Amino acid sequence: MNATINRQYLLKQRPSGALQESDFAWAETPVPDPGPGGVLVRNVYLSLDPANRGWINDVPTYRAPVPVGGPMAGFTISRVVASNRDDLKPGDFVEGDGGWQDYAAYGPDDYVYRLPEGDDLIARISVLGVTGKTAYWGLKDIGTPKAGETVVVSAAAGAVGSLTGQIAKILGCRAVGLAGTDEKCRWITEELGFDAAINYRSEHVGKALKQHCPDGIDIYFDNVGGDILQAALFQMNQRGRIVCCGVISQYDTATPAPGPHGVPGLIVVKRLRMEGFIVLDYEDRRQEAERDLSAWVADGGLTYKVDVIDGLEQAPKALIGLLHGENTGKRMIRIAEPEG
Amino acid sequence: MNATINRQYLLKQRPSGALQESDFAWAETPVPDPGPGGVLVRNVYLSLDPANRGWINDVPTYRAPVPVGGPMAGFTISRVVASNRDDLKPGDFVEGDGGWQDYAAYGPDDYVYRLPEGDDLIARISVLGVTGKTAYWGLKDIGTPKAGETVVVSAAAGAVGSLTGQIAKILGCRAVGLAGTDEKCRWITEELGFDAAINYRSEHVGKALKQHCPDGIDIYFDNVGGDILQAALFQMNQRGRIVCCGVISQYDTATPAPGPHGVPGLIVVKRLRMEGFIVLDYEDRRQEAERDLSAWVADGGLTYKVDVIDGLEQAPKALIGLLHGENTGKRMIRIAEPEG
Repeated sequence: MNATINRQYLLKQRPSGALQESDFAWAETPVPDPGPGGVLVRNVYLSLDPANRGWINDVPTYRAPVPVGGPMAGFTISRVVASNRDDLKPGDFVEGDGGWQDYAAYGPDDYVYRLPEGDDLIARISVLGVTGKTAYWGLKDIGTPKAGETVVVSAAAGAVGSLTGQIAKILGCRAVGLAGTDEKCRWITEELGFDAAINYRSEHVGKALKQHCPDGIDIYFDNVGGDILQAALFQMNQRGRIVCCGVISQYDTATPAPGPHGVPGLIVVKRLRMEGFIVLDYEDRRQEAERDLSAWVADGGLTYKVDVIDGLEQAPKALIGLLHGENTGKRMIRIAEPEG
Repeated sequence: MNATINRQYLLKQRPSGALQESDFAWAETPVPDPGPGGVLVRNVYLSLDPANRGWINDVPTYRAPVPVGGPMAGFTISRVVASNRDDLKPGDFVEGDGGWQDYAAYGPDDYVYRLPEGDDLIARISVLGVTGKTAYWGLKDIGTPKAGETVVVSAAAGAVGSLTGQIAKILGCRAVGLAGTDEKCRWITEELGFDAAINYRSEHVGKALKQHCPDGIDIYFDNVGGDILQAALFQMNQRGRIVCCGVISQYDTATPAPGPHGVPGLIVVKRLRMEGFIVLDYEDRRQEAERDLSAWVADGGLTYKVDVIDGLEQAPKALIGLLHGENTGKRMIRIAEPEG
């Protein structure tokens, strides 16, 4: 290994309101040492996810908040550079929480998963990664879909949403997606096979849901919260399920909106189930999800689109753009060439 | 049968805002005919439940709204007066939806359940009836409690809440109740064995929950919605469950409050499950609930209190008082003497 400098983005301060590029600080520090039983990796792909925004508030979520002054966290695929572990050798690719930096050191107890040799890294960080598995487990395990049911998905042209609607179709459901531009709406219906799309910026969401879900909504896969959640709540069928996957509409603000009308009244009278989940909880069933997702990709039932941005330098701007909905499909940063 | 007059309360109009006695109209109509395959009953006890308020809005719930001009609906225990059914004979007692009236006729397909001979009718309309089974199934099947967990119950001196906290204790949990007077708080701790009580009118609910739930809340059994739900949400533990049983704070108004802050944000990051249920869905498991509840009453683990008001005339005023929290324990109307 020749490099001695580790370029990083540190969390400079907790955002007050909408995230700004100036909430991050660029730093150049020495490349870390793997340490006893540890491993040093070169980050190659960095996943950008709406949940990243939640990690930097001063409120513990399913993980402790990213500390101010520390490197920004993020899911990565990385190449092993030096290893003091028997199960990893230089040149192996691993999945982990490598963060917004060139290099990361994982201690012996840190989560790191070795990828099969010759793996498609782009597929691995999108359709087979956290993104794909979020769509898969959220719909399958929390949504518990039955063939013939109606599934509504928000942020349907996003990384998770675009897969969720397609999986709903594969499982025999009717899929209706909400997205923020006509182009996104066309993409999900014409290319991904959603039965209908609603442009939530130009249409009345409640009326459009009624029109496109004549039998009501059985499952609402919620990536956004806020007004769209409220509109969906009023169209839910008895015993419907609301999969609480994310809250894009509320992540990026210091003054979150009140919850939707109808909570908990409609939950009671319609016997609804609203349930959150974290994909990492399904780690022990990884093979099951990857087997199905790979098979669906192979047989053409599941299409995925990626939005690869080159250069670690772009990470803050790219995350902000993601929170504003400028992406179609899975956004990631290519920090280095895989074989670099 | 000698009586020819059926005294009734009809729903005169849908309430605009808080329920008024004038929303009901007294009527005296002929006693109905049981009809082919039907049965005529004399109503004896009428259950008053917060859910009654929801049934008279112009919005279908798990049942169609009570029609304007029709008799007000309500769970009853009644004595069979005349029967054209082989399985029921005069003198039998039955459970059903007999409504706010002296007599009801059930058609051959209407829900009606014959009580065992010599049954304790007061127990049957409280701890073994809809009330007790609501506490039982809500906590057990939706809350899925584990010994050692902390269960918080709102409207804890009410009919359902007072049983829920005691069942939580029987199942090995810590029980914390919220009620609206110091007297109710003393009753649930000193007589019912709750570990702690919070007077939500005089205390800061968020701070009090933190104090009395040092390990956080695992299950919040919600009878009220609104501010108390919001305060509980912020103290929920990871993977906590919110049993959406009722919404007393929001039933009796034309302008329901927005939902709580933290929906759906906290549901996602804490992986919470919020779920509504209707006790009637558990009809096929009736024996299971009744067996446990009877055994707990017999061994002294489960105490119940009833608030019996004499006279059908009192029903509107008694329901309004219930919605304002004036009862302790299960409120009901005695329409007639059981052996009348």
